[in-house]
Amino acid sequence: MFDKVTIIGLGLIGSSVARIILKKRLAKTLVAADASAEVCKKVHDLGLAHRVTDDLAQAVEGADLVLIAVPVGAMRAVAQAIAPSLMPGAIVTDTGSVKMAVIDAIRPFCPPEVEFVPGHPIAGTEFSGPEAGFTELFENRWCVLTPLPDTGVRAVEKVTKLWEECSARIEIMDPAHHDLVLGITSHLPHLIAYTIVGTATELEDDIKSEVIKFSASGFRDFTRIAASDPVMWRDIFMNNKSAVLEVLQRFSEDLTALQKAIRQGNGDYLYDVFTKTRAIRKQIVEQGQAE
Amino acid sequence: MFDKVTIIGLGLIGSSVARIILKKRLAKTLVAADASAEVCKKVHDLGLAHRVTDDLAQAVEGADLVLIAVPVGAMRAVAQAIAPSLMPGAIVTDTGSVKMAVIDAIRPFCPPEVEFVPGHPIAGTEFSGPEAGFTELFENRWCVLTPLPDTGVRAVEKVTKLWEECSARIEIMDPAHHDLVLGITSHLPHLIAYTIVGTATELEDDIKSEVIKFSASGFRDFTRIAASDPVMWRDIFMNNKSAVLEVLQRFSEDLTALQKAIRQGNGDYLYDVFTKTRAIRKQIVEQGQAE
Repeated sequence: MFDKVTIIGLGLIGSSVARIILKKRLAKTLVAADASAEVCKKVHDLGLAHRVTDDLAQAVEGADLVLIAVPVGAMRAVAQAIAPSLMPGAIVTDTGSVKMAVIDAIRPFCPPEVEFVPGHPIAGTEFSGPEAGFTELFENRWCVLTPLPDTGVRAVEKVTKLWEECSARIEIMDPAHHDLVLGITSHLPHLIAYTIVGTATELEDDIKSEVIKFSASGFRDFTRIAASDPVMWRDIFMNNKSAVLEVLQRFSEDLTALQKAIRQGNGDYLYDVFTKTRAIRKQIVEQGQAE
Repeated sequence: MFDKVTIIGLGLIGSSVARIILKKRLAKTLVAADASAEVCKKVHDLGLAHRVTDDLAQAVEGADLVLIAVPVGAMRAVAQAIAPSLMPGAIVTDTGSVKMAVIDAIRPFCPPEVEFVPGHPIAGTEFSGPEAGFTELFENRWCVLTPLPDTGVRAVEKVTKLWEECSARIEIMDPAHHDLVLGITSHLPHLIAYTIVGTATELEDDIKSEVIKFSASGFRDFTRIAASDPVMWRDIFMNNKSAVLEVLQRFSEDLTALQKAIRQGNGDYLYDVFTKTRAIRKQIVEQGQAE
């Protein structure tokens, strides 16, 4: 499918794609590039690529596909470093959880004869690093592509093929719309989970140990999300600021309304909200996204 | 173990205990009592008790153990209805998720020769009703007992035995402390989950369908909790008001701080919080409460 693929950033996502490319022989040559010497060593030891290097510019030389899978905040520096070495006709794609900011970060550095296809595979676990990846990560999950007006059709098709080989389902979307939808489905839930678990970290030690002991009563479900990679999530919130603050505002208003209902003993209001939310779960189950 | 057990309220919890009592033959006679004729019919059809009735007072006559497993808001009416029919020496216990309010609701009606052992099995799913119960529900889960100063040791032991037969682990706790700890580990997480899913119910239809489509990115984890029984949870918030409002206050302060950090672009603050929360997950995994 490809002559030479370079993956930059070998965390959970990048290393999972690397595993799939090797397993299915999707590229004659797979180069893994990571700024961290420690990550490079792990990638080498795990045998996740034909060649491993911390020299990003050299890594992309002659590559027909470059997949940038670094935290959103590192996209600009990577684009700047690799731009002069990109081959004419090369396709650059990324896996960033935010699309508007990543397009702003990468696009200015893309030479005119290079195609840029922004992408976001909606998959992950609370584990990170090259050892956390696995070939089934994208199975039956969505990968959103947000091509630009000047992105060539052939380039979009090639990136689509790659993700289809990863068993993902493809959705084409406007980048700003992507950032709003993901702000609701992903960024706000993570922010809330980080908050509630963060609140618990500040409890006195004896109560904290009881919270851990009895965590199965609800709290535990939040700790999984709140164990996600801190750098990745810091970057997401720093780079999807307006969408996150917008949905957070709606959330805060709704929380205040529930708080008021509890204070005033307004059981009918609580019952009404709690009944509507049950219906959403039912729809998710019906669509095969949960059991 | 018991001569005659009466279970009042045959929802997820009550029907699970009924299944265990029948399976392990823990009582010569098991009576199921529920105010709902529909529930009584289901319990009868499922064969979950030796006798099924909607007459609560008659149901407890001659019972040496009465387990009240109704929503917290219905405890007072049940206690009032059964009090005159309780046998001297009978043990009354409950499964309410709030302990202070339930003690206030039941204790005034308990005749002096009846023992009251407040209890709370910390187990559940997002499903409800007699058909949702199963014998493994309490396996390896905690059951908190909050005996009163005048509760007899023998009565606490008998209730302990019952829950041990259900494969639960027993913890003895002060009722006010129980309400605070569960306020943090269970009630606040549920309130937050209800809020975030409730916020989504108010979105325009096209965005709502996308939220459901991409729910696996975080949102989905909240919908499971927010699909819990609306009556049960309305009653919990109405009856653990002060503890819930107290922990909600701390949560709101922490959320405001994160919101401010996002607005100001204070990445260090976000990184710091997100790193601490990861450590809590680790402790929960280490204690065998998650994988």
